[in-house]
Order: sequence, then structure tokens, then C-alpha cells
Amino acid sequence: MKKIRVTIWNEFKHEKNNPDVAAIYPKGIHGCIGDFLSECDDVEVRLACLDDPDHGIPNEVLDNTDVLIWWGHCYHDAVSDERVEYVRQRVYDGMGFIACHSAHHSKPFKRIVGTTGNLSWGDEFHEILWNLKPSHPIAAGIPDKFELESEELYAEPFYIPNPDDLIFGAWYTSGHIFRAGATFTRGLGKIFYFQPGHETCRSFYDKNVQRVLKNAVHWCAPNEVGYEFSNDCPYIKPIV
Amino acid sequence: MKKIRVTIWNEFKHEKNNPDVAAIYPKGIHGCIGDFLSECDDVEVRLACLDDPDHGIPNEVLDNTDVLIWWGHCYHDAVSDERVEYVRQRVYDGMGFIACHSAHHSKPFKRIVGTTGNLSWGDEFHEILWNLKPSHPIAAGIPDKFELESEELYAEPFYIPNPDDLIFGAWYTSGHIFRAGATFTRGLGKIFYFQPGHETCRSFYDKNVQRVLKNAVHWCAPNEVGYEFSNDCPYIKPIV
Amino acid sequence: MKKIRVTIWNEFKHEKNNPDVAAIYPKGIHGCIGDFLSECDDVEVRLACLDDPDHGIPNEVLDNTDVLIWWGHCYHDAVSDERVEYVRQRVYDGMGFIACHSAHHSKPFKRIVGTTGNLSWGDEFHEILWNLKPSHPIAAGIPDKFELESEELYAEPFYIPNPDDLIFGAWYTSGHIFRAGATFTRGLGKIFYFQPGHETCRSFYDKNVQRVLKNAVHWCAPNEVGYEFSNDCPYIKPIV
Amino acid sequence: MKKIRVTIWNEFKHEKNNPDVAAIYPKGIHGCIGDFLSECDDVEVRLACLDDPDHGIPNEVLDNTDVLIWWGHCYHDAVSDERVEYVRQRVYDGMGFIACHSAHHSKPFKRIVGTTGNLSWGDEFHEILWNLKPSHPIAAGIPDKFELESEELYAEPFYIPNPDDLIFGAWYTSGHIFRAGATFTRGLGKIFYFQPGHETCRSFYDKNVQRVLKNAVHWCAPNEVGYEFSNDCPYIKPIV
Repeated sequence: MKKIRVTIWNEFKHEKNNPDVAAIYPKGIHGCIGDFLSECDDVEVRLACLDDPDHGIPNEVLDNTDVLIWWGHCYHDAVSDERVEYVRQRVYDGMGFIACHSAHHSKPFKRIVGTTGNLSWGDEFHEILWNLKPSHPIAAGIPDKFELESEELYAEPFYIPNPDDLIFGAWYTSGHIFRAGATFTRGLGKIFYFQPGHETCRSFYDKNVQRVLKNAVHWCAPNEVGYEFSNDCPYIKPIV
Repeated sequence: MKKIRVTIWNEFKHEKNNPDVAAIYPKGIHGCIGDFLSECDDVEVRLACLDDPDHGIPNEVLDNTDVLIWWGHCYHDAVSDERVEYVRQRVYDGMGFIACHSAHHSKPFKRIVGTTGNLSWGDEFHEILWNLKPSHPIAAGIPDKFELESEELYAEPFYIPNPDDLIFGAWYTSGHIFRAGATFTRGLGKIFYFQPGHETCRSFYDKNVQRVLKNAVHWCAPNEVGYEFSNDCPYIKPIV
Repeated sequence: MKKIRVTIWNEFKHEKNNPDVAAIYPKGIHGCIGDFLSECDDVEVRLACLDDPDHGIPNEVLDNTDVLIWWGHCYHDAVSDERVEYVRQRVYDGMGFIACHSAHHSKPFKRIVGTTGNLSWGDEFHEILWNLKPSHPIAAGIPDKFELESEELYAEPFYIPNPDDLIFGAWYTSGHIFRAGATFTRGLGKIFYFQPGHETCRSFYDKNVQRVLKNAVHWCAPNEVGYEFSNDCPYIKPIV
Repeated sequence: MKKIRVTIWNEFKHEKNNPDVAAIYPKGIHGCIGDFLSECDDVEVRLACLDDPDHGIPNEVLDNTDVLIWWGHCYHDAVSDERVEYVRQRVYDGMGFIACHSAHHSKPFKRIVGTTGNLSWGDEFHEILWNLKPSHPIAAGIPDKFELESEELYAEPFYIPNPDDLIFGAWYTSGHIFRAGATFTRGLGKIFYFQPGHETCRSFYDKNVQRVLKNAVHWCAPNEVGYEFSNDCPYIKPIV
């Protein structure tokens, strides 16, 4: 069986600096995501962090990654532009990209999709996620709604491009809503943004969040491309 | 100045049968909408009701209507299929169509757009409408959010096609959200669905609701078409 | 392995009335499509025709169909409205629908999607199909372009709703273009329109056409739905 | 009358280096565009070029521009990243952006929209532009098709994000097609890409090309925004 090669990137700072976060995610958020994705027989997981050499994503890693999952929060600017550009190129060449939670403001997401990624944010509130597109593969097996005891408030207006598909919408006790799950396509790459996953919340242990991310990995994995793709503007001759 | 000819269609039953509704909308919901739309110099209003001959929308009325606004709730089935088909044809030929509130389940909306229009519904709750697409002409001048003291709960999952633009999202105290303002295009026609407007609520007196509907009338009005449009499948010859 | 249950519906008139067509498609167009789809291990094929009892698609067939493929041309009006309504309902409930060639004007396609399906048409010309969305599963393995020696001219303007994804675009020697492959979603159902397949042309023997249809069957197959779906407007209570 | 303040940016190199181009566009391509846009009473034109100080688009110019039109071809890299970033910010804040012809590969277009902008290109051929979305304001008054005697071949696959609306499609004698007119929205800004306009062709004298650009200027002009927009991620409090 051909495996989907997933690289999970994490800042991995909160888990070291904040004992509360470390208690929730002792192996790091990336470790937690890696654990449940590894339940899929057809998924192969690699972990990468900000402080690794080349942030853990040198060319040879990205060249062998089918789907890159990105969790970043407070150190977006610490990611080198050179790595970001390579990630962007790889996505345009077909690598899938899943932006978790605060990655709405990460350099790769903003540049790949073309957006400020701006939103409003607040404290933690009870959240209900509504399934707006049950026919989409990312929503397969997900109920009409599911609840997260507590999540950081991310609220509209969320300045993203019109998504290809809007899959989840969030309700918060605070009076706010949010487009919490949305797909985009750029070049040959498929992109999914998903809001849950604040470092002090337990969302990555939620069975529905886990199912969404498993589904998303499969949806974002690149298709077979039936021609020689060149990331360039080739000169062509008439064909008739 | 060329005026936009708007026809406002209303079941006009609740206002006759329910004194509470009559107290809120003494001239009928259509009368209320007509009053505030008439504040626009470039809008010309005509009223039509279910019990009028031909439901108030004979061919000669529809042929001279640029935008049809539809409010229906409990008598969807009382609208003749023959009139519905003519409305649908006129929309595909360019007439704008604004479906208010329960018109999600009206025959014209369902057939024009291609949908069941199914949703979940409940009692009245406090509603907050969020502006998701401030760059759209229908959102011009609308704040980032506005509140309605009380509206009938319309909730996701809402089985509509992917909108061309999703403009408003609703939050309710009840824990629900809703895609409350959405545009569609079919043939030459522009369609806008807008959720506020339950008969026992005062939403059509809200300044933001009024501004949205004024904007929507202007957005839905047909463009100049630069060719002879025939609603047919013409046989054509090679042009080179 | 759970199989995708595909029902292929054909008017099956040209093949009986026109020896030229019979020579190309001796088993009928549906038979030809069934033959190449049967090459997929996970696909189970059933054939149905206009002249069969209930047009070959009684409720018990549709209730056990995952994807319905539709080929119709000159007898659209001969299909009973009652069957069409059941097809529409089944699509909104999740059954996939693939409209081949002249099915742009079939009753099911027009009603499911909400469109006149009007286009311009002409004689047969050389056609080149361009792959506009190589990252879509329906385009998996398809080259940047492929050519059909001869196809009936279907030309813009094509009055369809904005597709969810526009996958193929057609070029004809005649000077015309066409949105030749497009996806839509309605309710829980996934819909694909694909232009090639005129009865006097050999397009269904083309390897790329076959691959597109195989891909489309897999893409249109319904997802697992994680909640009790009721095709209705349920009354709901507050959840907070 | 409030005027739409349009700034037309041009590399303005071909016109100086190539007598054939100078003969077609003696005032420069920007001068030609400025001339026909000035026929609109509600449009105010300013010209800007690569070799002007700050490329003619210092902050005070961009801050007073409603719609920026961009024509660039061979000197994309000569545009300073600092200016490009300010353009991008202004678009996300609401300034309209029209990318003409080779601006598919300009820094602003690629960064604003999030794309490589890659396409295939070739020599000059006869082109037919088809009107795919006659109901869109940018297509107002445009026939179902119009022809350009000769244009540089720009061909699919064109690696752009799914457009909000695909308005024009191009046919070339060479066997190629192209998504020649497409809209995008990012932040508060509206963007239009339009393919005609090679420097050795006379397309900017074509009445339909001129009408499209006049329409596009009006469509891209920013809406009234009904709230204090801050290009940031504000911290917010619960509102209920």
C-alpha cells in the first residue's frame, strides 16, 4: 500500500515553557497529532519543529512529504522566509497543507492562500462546531454538530478568500461565529484550514477533531498527475 | 433616471389572521418593505399577494419587474405551479429574486436554485448577524455585526448549494448558527436569500435589515445584456 | 470490499433506430459505459433504459444506487416527472449523478442543479479537452489536454450555475469553447456534468474519457454521513 | 459626484525601446487606457510608470487610489518588494486591482491572490473571447463573443485559484483556450484579471476591451464599509 507521508510541524515552545500545556500535550501537540494519525494504516508520520535544523523541514523532507500539517502561534516571524518560500512552492507543486488553529497567521498559510488571515480573537469559551458540508470527504462520519468544552475564541470577520468549500462553522457562547473549517486549492495543492487546537485546550483529543484531521490528510494528499508538470511558463506551438 | 421596478410578493395571511402580526405590520409585511424601499429615488414599488388574481403576478407584471421580493411561509403549496414556472423563467431571463425568511422553502426559491431548502428551525431567540463579506455591494454600509432582539431560529445544516458569496452568518443564543445571507446566480438572474423577517418579529423595521434589502435590490437588478438572448438551444455554424 | 453501485441509464433509441449508431455501440451506449466501468474492482454495474418498466429505475433500484449515470438526448420529455422527482430526491439524499453529453437538457439535471441547461450546438468538429483543475480527483491521471477526433459542438454561453469546480474546458475547430466538465453539489449529492458522448462519435472508447468517468464515479459516490439525516425541516430546541 | 480615482501603472519600456510598439501606443499603453477611461464622467485618471520615483506609486498616491490598473511584462523583478507589499496591503484594505495581460506574472498579482500565475504562452493568433457570465457587471453590454484580430497566446493550464466568477473564456486558432477574465476578492479588495493587451497588438483600441475595463473599474471600486476596519487581529470581549 502506498502510504501518505505526513509531516507535522509544530513551534513546540508552549509545551516547553508552560507546564499547563506540557501536562496536556506531554509529547507536544505534534506528537499528539502524530499519535492519532498513526492509527491510519495508510499514513506515515514524521515530526518537525521550529528549533530543529532548517526548522525540521529541509528540502529533502519537504520533497518527500505528501501533506504538511502546521501548528504555529507566537513565533510565526521566527520561521525563515527561505523555508516558507520552499513550502509555498511545494504546495503549488501538489503537497497538501493543513493549517491548524493559529496557523491562520502563519507565513506559509498567508502566502500560499493570499490573505492577511486577520480575525478577531478572545478568551476561551464553549464552542459548538456545525457541519455545513456533510457531503465533503473531510466531513465524512462527522455528526451534524460537535462540541468542544473550551476553545480560544476566533471570530468573524475572518479575512480569508472565498473558500472552495466551507465545511465547518463555529458558535461560541460569547456571541461570535467563525468559519472554522475551509478548503482552498492553489496550483496543484489542496489546503485545509481548521480552527480547533489552542495549546491550553484538549481539542486534539476530541474524537471528531481527530476524524476531521484524518479525513483532511486523505483529502489533501496529492492526486496522480497525468502530465509532466513544470512550475514555469513554457513556450508552446500551435497544435492544430 | 431609469427606475428599478420592484414587485414585493407576500402571502398576506398572518397579517389578516393574527392580530399580533397585524399590530406589527398593519400594512402587511409587503407594505412595510415597500415603504422603506420607496425611500430610494431609483426604486419603483408594486405590491402583490397570494389572494390577488394570478397571485398578483400575471405575466404582464413579471415582464415589467426587475426584482421580485418573495415572502411566503405557510401557503407555499397554494402558489400555482404555472406561476412558479413563469417566475423561474423570468429569473433565468434576468429578473432578480430576493427570498426573505421562510421563502427558503418557497416553490420559486427551491426550483430556481435547485435545492430542498431544508433547515432546522425553532422558537424565537436573540440573533446576531455577522458581516462575512464586507466588500460585497449587498454589505455596503453594514457594520461588522448587528443584532435583532428576537428572530425565529433558522439553523444549520441548511441544505443550499454552495453560494456564490456568503455574506451574512447568524448567531443565536440557542447554540445555533446559520448562513443567513447568501447570493446565487442562475441564467441571467441574480438571487439573494436573507433570513430575517419572521412575521411576529420587528426585523423589517431594523435599519440594517432595511439597508441590506435596499442594497440587494440594486445588486439583483439586471445588467444590460449586450446580445440577443434567447432562452433556447440555438443551432450555430462555425465562425472560423 | 464495499462496492460502488452504479446504475447507467440510457434512452437506448438511437442504437435501435440508426444503424450507424448501432455499429458504434452495439450493446448500447450504456452497455459500453458499463463495460469499461466494470474494469474497476470496486464498481458494480446495473443497466436501465427508457423503455424498461419504470424506465428501469423503480424506487428499489434507485434506493440501491450509489451513482446514477444519465445519457439522454431526444426523449427527455418521455421521462415521467414522477421518476424524475424521485431521482432528484435521491440525489439530495446523497446519490451521485453524472450527466453525460445531452443530459445537460435532461429533466433530472435541470431540476437537480437548478438551470435551463441551455447552450448553443452545431455539427461535429474536432475537439480538444483541456485539463483546468489537475488537482481534482476527477482529473487524476488525465493529461494537460486530450483530443477527440470528432464531437458534436456544444458551445458557450452555457447557462449553468457557477460550478463548484470547473475541471475541463473544450476547444473546437469551429471557433467555440465550452465548459465541458464541471462539478456541483446539492444536498448530500455530488453531480458531475461531462460533455463528450454524442451517439455518432466514438468518445466512450477514448481512454481519457473512460478514465474521467471512472474517476467521476468514485468522486460522486456518497460519503459516510455521521448523523441521522432527515430530508425535512425538523423543529429543534436550544442546546445551551 | 464622487469620482473613482484610478491609477494606471505601466512598465513603459516597450514603447520606448520598440518603434512598432510606439507606433501603436504613442502615449504608452497607460496613456491609451487613461484616454478611454477618461470618457467616464465619474472616473479620474492618474498615470504611473516603473521609472518614476517610487515607481510612481508612493504611499500618498496609493492612499488616494480607488482602483490600480497594472500592466507589466518584462520587468516584474524591477519592481521593489517594498512597493509591492504596500500595494498588497492597500488591496487587502479595499483598493481595487486590475491585472492586465502579462500582469498574471507580476509580483502584486501573484502575492495578492496567492498563485504562481503560471500559464503556457506562444506567438500571436486570432482570438475569440466568449462571454461566460453575462449577468456580471463586468460583462454588462458585452456581446456573447467578440474577436481580436491578433493576441499573444496565453493558454491553459493557467494556475490560478478558483475565481469567484469566471467571466470570459478565450479561443485561439492555435488549438488553445484560456480563462481570460476572472474575478477574485481578498480582504476588502476586488481583483480582476483580463488577458488581452499584448504590446504589439491593438487590443486596447477594441471597443469591447474598453467597455470591459470601464465596467471593471466600476466593479472594483471599493464599497462603503460600515465599521471601523483595522488591518489587524483585535482582542475582543464577549458580547452576550
